[in-house]
Amino acid sequence: MKQTSARKPTPAAPQPIGVFDSGIGGLTVVAALRKLLPAESIFYIGDTARVPYGGKSQATIERYSQELSGLLLAERAKLIVVACNTASALGVPRLRETLRIPVTGVIEPGAQAAVKATRSGKVGVIGTRATIASRAYERAIEALDAKVKVFTEPCPLLVPLIEEGWLEDPVTDSIIARYLEKLLRSGVDTLVLGCTHYPLLRAAIQRHAGPDVTLVDSAQNTALAVQKLLRQQKLAAPRASVGKLQVALTDQSSAFLRVAEQALGLQVGDTKLRAVQHAVG
Amino acid sequence: MKQTSARKPTPAAPQPIGVFDSGIGGLTVVAALRKLLPAESIFYIGDTARVPYGGKSQATIERYSQELSGLLLAERAKLIVVACNTASALGVPRLRETLRIPVTGVIEPGAQAAVKATRSGKVGVIGTRATIASRAYERAIEALDAKVKVFTEPCPLLVPLIEEGWLEDPVTDSIIARYLEKLLRSGVDTLVLGCTHYPLLRAAIQRHAGPDVTLVDSAQNTALAVQKLLRQQKLAAPRASVGKLQVALTDQSSAFLRVAEQALGLQVGDTKLRAVQHAVG
Repeated sequence: MKQTSARKPTPAAPQPIGVFDSGIGGLTVVAALRKLLPAESIFYIGDTARVPYGGKSQATIERYSQELSGLLLAERAKLIVVACNTASALGVPRLRETLRIPVTGVIEPGAQAAVKATRSGKVGVIGTRATIASRAYERAIEALDAKVKVFTEPCPLLVPLIEEGWLEDPVTDSIIARYLEKLLRSGVDTLVLGCTHYPLLRAAIQRHAGPDVTLVDSAQNTALAVQKLLRQQKLAAPRASVGKLQVALTDQSSAFLRVAEQALGLQVGDTKLRAVQHAVG
Repeated sequence: MKQTSARKPTPAAPQPIGVFDSGIGGLTVVAALRKLLPAESIFYIGDTARVPYGGKSQATIERYSQELSGLLLAERAKLIVVACNTASALGVPRLRETLRIPVTGVIEPGAQAAVKATRSGKVGVIGTRATIASRAYERAIEALDAKVKVFTEPCPLLVPLIEEGWLEDPVTDSIIARYLEKLLRSGVDTLVLGCTHYPLLRAAIQRHAGPDVTLVDSAQNTALAVQKLLRQQKLAAPRASVGKLQVALTDQSSAFLRVAEQALGLQVGDTKLRAVQHAVG
């Protein structure tokens, strides 16, 4: 039968949630988003050409964050998730000043979950050197409940251990033991995994911290925060949609992308390469 | 007594040796240069805004190497030392095509020293993932002596361990043990420290490898290669000169700069900040 009706305009592709990270670790946030919000499309960009951000200055990280957000806006992102603790700590305030779409980092959702979880009022936070030095978790937790005490410990070896794939390994266990020693002695009953790589070490960290310590996983809590934000701003995709995941990197894909894909059960097809520019000073 | 002679023109400042690295590790090469060639001035630039290079692609590393060399030329460098194994493996060939001053990496000097040192004809090489994957040491050693067999092992955790300052530490020892196990089983009698950070772990590596394995330190051998090149090209500073060291970084100085300064006994005064630009694709 011949169709005679006038041609309808093709509906525009749904706008994705834009997610960026310094590298691959932010895929833990993507995995949590896919699970919670399967109708949403996601465009992820990992800045593998300049990874890691953990040791870099605020000015540099602000500039990188602006640039990656620009790439996500070009993909018509409706909301930006900064799936990197360092960039959340150092880059989000400036993004919120300059962008006209909602921006969420991973720190506030983690801080909220930690304040809700603690009974002793003592919360531990582990992360990269830059995240810990930024004192962003202390500030976020204090703003929610000034009575909660925060104890922090930078753990710079955990990301390389994860990228090496030593997730269940006696060496990793002894490094975790060393990093957690002081925190556990100070009586924390809640531990924030303040780096998007760390959920991949969740089992090893939980084993060492013991069953009485609640782990707060920024990936899960960020996905919940995104769900809430989409509802509030009426930006959610129709329920019947089937979201797609697209991944772009600023340098060619690393071996670790495959590790993460497997460990997280993500379907990452071909990755794209995106240009980044950077000027210091 | 009054000086009445006509004012002589100020002599131009001596041209420095330009040294670049992805970060701070290349200061091991600077320390070796200062010791061997105290009359030479050195201008060092560490690309701390984009460190590490170990996991990045050839195209990206070529571009970074060109850019850093441009900054060194602006400092009137008479010779460029690429004090980074990854950039030596991936960036030096293109630099030699495009620059009109001599360029030396750290790989050829290390390969020469290894071929000279081995008695069993079996040489081990350790380095970052990118250096090992580039097969640059295999090619350099084969070009010198096709009968020498090369065994390699990527050791991605050693740089973060060094930057954590765990130089004498049981955790570091057990990671070294694991990385060296296969190499030592294959009967190497010479081990190339194929990363400019590794001389800081020299004692721990030697302890594990045992007294019968000769360690080849790229820092020392590169300094010897620079000495030879300066003589050949008649570029050496007058013997009576007293060389100066200047250090610039592309991001603000890291805690590790102070670790390296102390461990290497270097006098690094104020560091400068230099702009870098980068476009992929």
